[in-house]
Amino acid sequence: MKVDGKDMRPIWVDAASEMVQVIDQRFLPHKLIIKSLNSVDDTIHAIKEMVVRGAPLIGAAGALGVYISLVQENNKGADNDYLISECRRLKDARPTAMNLFWGVDRVLSVALTHENYGARVKAALDEAFKIVEEEAVNCQKIGEYGLPIIEEISKRKKGEPVNILTHCNAGWLACIEYGTAMAPMYTAVDNHIDIHVWVDETRPLNQGSRLTAWELGKHGVRHTVITDNAGGHIMQHGMVDIVIVGTDRTTRAGDVANKIGTYLKALAAKDNNIPFYVALPSSTFDWDITDGIANIPIEERDPDEIRYIQGLCNGKVEKVLVPPETSNAANHAFDVTPARLVTGFITERGVCRATESDIMSLFPDKKSGKKTG
Amino acid sequence: MKVDGKDMRPIWVDAASEMVQVIDQRFLPHKLIIKSLNSVDDTIHAIKEMVVRGAPLIGAAGALGVYISLVQENNKGADNDYLISECRRLKDARPTAMNLFWGVDRVLSVALTHENYGARVKAALDEAFKIVEEEAVNCQKIGEYGLPIIEEISKRKKGEPVNILTHCNAGWLACIEYGTAMAPMYTAVDNHIDIHVWVDETRPLNQGSRLTAWELGKHGVRHTVITDNAGGHIMQHGMVDIVIVGTDRTTRAGDVANKIGTYLKALAAKDNNIPFYVALPSSTFDWDITDGIANIPIEERDPDEIRYIQGLCNGKVEKVLVPPETSNAANHAFDVTPARLVTGFITERGVCRATESDIMSLFPDKKSGKKTG
Repeated sequence: MKVDGKDMRPIWVDAASEMVQVIDQRFLPHKLIIKSLNSVDDTIHAIKEMVVRGAPLIGAAGALGVYISLVQENNKGADNDYLISECRRLKDARPTAMNLFWGVDRVLSVALTHENYGARVKAALDEAFKIVEEEAVNCQKIGEYGLPIIEEISKRKKGEPVNILTHCNAGWLACIEYGTAMAPMYTAVDNHIDIHVWVDETRPLNQGSRLTAWELGKHGVRHTVITDNAGGHIMQHGMVDIVIVGTDRTTRAGDVANKIGTYLKALAAKDNNIPFYVALPSSTFDWDITDGIANIPIEERDPDEIRYIQGLCNGKVEKVLVPPETSNAANHAFDVTPARLVTGFITERGVCRATESDIMSLFPDKKSGKKTG
Repeated sequence: MKVDGKDMRPIWVDAASEMVQVIDQRFLPHKLIIKSLNSVDDTIHAIKEMVVRGAPLIGAAGALGVYISLVQENNKGADNDYLISECRRLKDARPTAMNLFWGVDRVLSVALTHENYGARVKAALDEAFKIVEEEAVNCQKIGEYGLPIIEEISKRKKGEPVNILTHCNAGWLACIEYGTAMAPMYTAVDNHIDIHVWVDETRPLNQGSRLTAWELGKHGVRHTVITDNAGGHIMQHGMVDIVIVGTDRTTRAGDVANKIGTYLKALAAKDNNIPFYVALPSSTFDWDITDGIANIPIEERDPDEIRYIQGLCNGKVEKVLVPPETSNAANHAFDVTPARLVTGFITERGVCRATESDIMSLFPDKKSGKKTG
């Protein structure tokens, strides 16, 4: 997507150095900093510390991470045990991230079919590029399949702005192009539909107010930042026509793990008869589980992410301590929205209702490996 | 209540100067600053800018504001029109604050019965003091009536800590002593019941992480600050036994206006069968209206309260800008929780269910002046 007129993706391989580079999303919207991932440790750090974040982008970083493990300093060439152990470290970086496991495993299995070091490196990079391009295409398709939903509301409102609420950032920064939740919004704008986006700030790391607002602003889309607390009130008062969010992991039965707070918005949407859609590529489905509340482990992150808030102060990016120094904080990073609160899924194959049978009829080729929930 | 061993209230009249003084709550928890309210303008500023906040405290500030109007520089003595117009200005300071209208009107009506200036000043001050003491006693009673609810959970859990979630600050800083929502918690602690409080940070002004956490810490009560997004997840996982919140205005039918985000917590409590109580003195009931969503005007505050977050940075209280400079924000300060989501009210007269008939049987002496909703 465009940033100040220049085409940009959140991850790419530098032509000269052949090293993976990313936008360091921790400093947006105030600084646009590019970071090189030169080792598996760099990649794990980038995933853990949310230099890169968002389900499809973490999948892409994991996929390229397999390539990085093969070309990093002191690599062990075509040693299988070494490669498998580096990949295990990559997959441990974030427990909720379905795409991470999927991206790493897919590239790993291709790499392992090559015994020659040079061929293995090339195969890993080719497969990672394939994943990156597939994700970009998937997001484009999600936009196309989401478009008629927004279009219909726009027609019903006789062209008045369609008010869309989103939580966290599931835009191109979280993906490769377009985004998941935001793909239908960008596609609507491209099709001259008048929209306005309510952007949940998304505490603790404010991916909404920092990243979604930045993306929308750069693309010229009208938006308003609100606190995570405000969604219920504006839904009660007819100020929201539709909610669209992304997801980090969704079960085959339609339970949705996404950024903490998503469940509260789904409850409010239900209470006010507002459609609540989840946009995702099939790589985000976990075909092995049905019960998301019982079976999706929820990452607990550093409490200092809650205690300290980062922003711009006198031209510098600084952090301020909000609660008393002595108060504890707890930082559950995700929650699970039960399928019963979800109106539908927008995927690269079309839209379906949030039931196991509807999901499986859209993806009949996806088989569960094991059944744990 | 105690602050570092010293008895303290959030508002008092200084013995030497006879002027009203308050804790400037904007700088807590990092700085404890005392401010004098020397004029109606000072008082309006203090209410608008949330130097003082919380339903009962705003009521007390409004009540003492009538006294301030009589003793401020350039006062017009016992001129009725002047007094009434100053009181109107006071009442306009915050549209949602039931206690403000109530406190101002009660002192005004007493003051107007005295034609002599000296007698009027004395009567106003006496009546304001009466309100302050009544609120302190009311909060104590709310604590006593709330205690058995917590006690019962503690018994059921065989003495394991009772996990209480609260939103915003409805402690002694918001009241005079004990608080409303927090009175049952302090009373439980005084009665050696093991409790742990989940403190919603309460964006945008973080009254939870700044004020509730500070109060609880000073009183030695175990607590954990969480984002406003987290409540649903911890309720889903059995980590919350009861929710207790305060209110700024509650209709005779039981609709509860409180800090934005309260409605979302009530929805989550309902979805997880967790009791959701609202603690309030009768002065917070609006006996004239039934439908809170239709009839309680919701204050929209400065969007910069969302865009800039205040905290401690290198020993100084600073503000950081979070979203892009160019992004708009909207700051709805309250929402309304429908009575159907409220388990019960804890008042100075006892506990009742959230129905008009139950509320009116606890307060049969309260008559509606007009019926607007």
